[in-house]
Amino acid sequence: MTFTRRDFTRLGAMGLAAQFVPKLGAQDAQAKTGYAVIGLGRIADHFLRGVLDTTNSRITALVSGHRDKAERIAVQYNVPSSSIYSYENFDEIAHNKSVDAVYVALPNSMHAEYTIRAAKAEKHVLCEKPMSTTVADAEAMIAACKAANVKLMIAYRCHYEPMNLLAVQLIRDGNLGQVQAIESSFGFNIARGEWRLNKQLAGGGPLFDVGIYSLNACRYLTREEPQHISAFASTTDDDGRFYQVEENVSWTMKFPSGVVASCNTSYGTNMEGYYRVYGSKGWLEMRPAFNYEGQHLRADFAGTQLDIPGATHDPSHFQAQADHLSHCIQNNSEPKSPGEEGLRDMRHIAAIYRSAGIAI
Amino acid sequence: MTFTRRDFTRLGAMGLAAQFVPKLGAQDAQAKTGYAVIGLGRIADHFLRGVLDTTNSRITALVSGHRDKAERIAVQYNVPSSSIYSYENFDEIAHNKSVDAVYVALPNSMHAEYTIRAAKAEKHVLCEKPMSTTVADAEAMIAACKAANVKLMIAYRCHYEPMNLLAVQLIRDGNLGQVQAIESSFGFNIARGEWRLNKQLAGGGPLFDVGIYSLNACRYLTREEPQHISAFASTTDDDGRFYQVEENVSWTMKFPSGVVASCNTSYGTNMEGYYRVYGSKGWLEMRPAFNYEGQHLRADFAGTQLDIPGATHDPSHFQAQADHLSHCIQNNSEPKSPGEEGLRDMRHIAAIYRSAGIAI
Repeated sequence: MTFTRRDFTRLGAMGLAAQFVPKLGAQDAQAKTGYAVIGLGRIADHFLRGVLDTTNSRITALVSGHRDKAERIAVQYNVPSSSIYSYENFDEIAHNKSVDAVYVALPNSMHAEYTIRAAKAEKHVLCEKPMSTTVADAEAMIAACKAANVKLMIAYRCHYEPMNLLAVQLIRDGNLGQVQAIESSFGFNIARGEWRLNKQLAGGGPLFDVGIYSLNACRYLTREEPQHISAFASTTDDDGRFYQVEENVSWTMKFPSGVVASCNTSYGTNMEGYYRVYGSKGWLEMRPAFNYEGQHLRADFAGTQLDIPGATHDPSHFQAQADHLSHCIQNNSEPKSPGEEGLRDMRHIAAIYRSAGIAI
Repeated sequence: MTFTRRDFTRLGAMGLAAQFVPKLGAQDAQAKTGYAVIGLGRIADHFLRGVLDTTNSRITALVSGHRDKAERIAVQYNVPSSSIYSYENFDEIAHNKSVDAVYVALPNSMHAEYTIRAAKAEKHVLCEKPMSTTVADAEAMIAACKAANVKLMIAYRCHYEPMNLLAVQLIRDGNLGQVQAIESSFGFNIARGEWRLNKQLAGGGPLFDVGIYSLNACRYLTREEPQHISAFASTTDDDGRFYQVEENVSWTMKFPSGVVASCNTSYGTNMEGYYRVYGSKGWLEMRPAFNYEGQHLRADFAGTQLDIPGATHDPSHFQAQADHLSHCIQNNSEPKSPGEEGLRDMRHIAAIYRSAGIAI
């Protein structure tokens, strides 16, 4: 891909970005893939709406500890009452033929249990990031899905988001020359009482929750695995929120090609999720990079300036994810972000915490 | 300082920024402080022009290995031919009563020698950053100036630049709340053949030359010294420029208050020098932060948005530095950026290189 125009119009950009949306094959005649949504929190709402926008997926069951809430959502999405499960009777989902796959949208530490139980029920799994809270859990999840011959996909939205895919392609095509360094941050000022502050549920602090976007981005932007990792964590804790998990993590990675990357994450300050890639021929910045919508790419390399506001809108990232997994299920192909991709992040996260002196 | 207006006008900003320009006392009746400029490269040209803009300083001597060049510049600045020195006869400057101070603008590794020779000649010293290439040299420079009872100031432009001072004041006044993290980078794609690529002259790579701005900024923004430092260096070296010094350094610092900072520097890619400070109540970014002119501050905290293009213009930073040292000399006060400030950076730079496994 080569850019000859100095100004890259919004219209042209949208056309270009559209090239990178994962392509679906011709729609199969068979029934839409049916999803059970496990955990009905905020992110599940995005997924539910995303599935509505697909042509190959539908919501066929809900799993929740709050029957009332589940009943309300079931009406909205045409899910029969008989397909509402609690955490206790979840395993009965094995007998529900309308359910092909589950979407695990629970607190981090419950991802492993419900992925493994879903696999045992012979359901495919779309699991939110972070895949798990330990490397051992991630390995067990992969093994369980393999043993049950079901697909396991980790919900890395950005792998299916056209602006991020455009950034990857621009770099891959050499527009930045030799990449030298990457900066990326993502954080927010967390509200008191969130489950994310509970270590037993969350596994750790902002690194698991939002820092993982920066880690994953450095990997998909370079298409390399970090060889060396160094990290500091800190808690300034001005108001007693952080008695279980860390407030800030700052880490640096060195990749085999020599690319160095520095990343920050925090629960104590709002950090707009972004990345900036510096190469010998210029730079590229996506800001915001990780939000549910509004990705915006700016770049300046070899005489070309780009300023491309993305055309994506919430819940299009969730639609793209569901589209992709359903396509994989219907065509027996492997997801682009399988369990092994989640496991790689888990290993790096463990290395970051180890370097920062934090036990997870 | 409290901001109540959502829009901070350029006019208002300039007025505000002007408050932070180092204040001179009433102009002394005594003669202007006379400077000998040692090394007539690019940065010396900025200093020469900056001194012209002062009311308390003048150029009274030049020191160069290129007599022809020195003669041309001497005519421009009304320096008599008899006040042009070579590196060989430099020590004779002791007898030149028109010279009160020297400005050391030589390659890094020569800073120590000429600072010490100037001190022995009983001249005050304004020395470019980095102060030296080793901690031992920095200590020797301080000792020599103390022994000779002359002032030693390190040319940290940003300590005298109103926009950087405004950023410091905004943070100090608590506008960002508890500072959590800082990002800062500065780098450029170096031309083949620059003396900066020669380790014997430069001491090291981009960390000494431009990374030091990010290091120093993290210190003046927090008013703390880093307690822990971790670093990676790398050389991708796509074209054989980096056989003596490193191409990239990425380092992380943890400060006593819990602030974490991540910084990058490079000779292999253009990194606009900037910093971004994240606090519990909002953020502040200076971009560019370290250029000779054009500082631009943006911030968003507690309902206040700032977008303040600075009013400084090249060579105003150099003027402010000369103004300050001359004022200190004329009033026998201590410079705001004494040798001890340079020594602190040298110790941190040594720690960064040590962590990155690079011998300096």
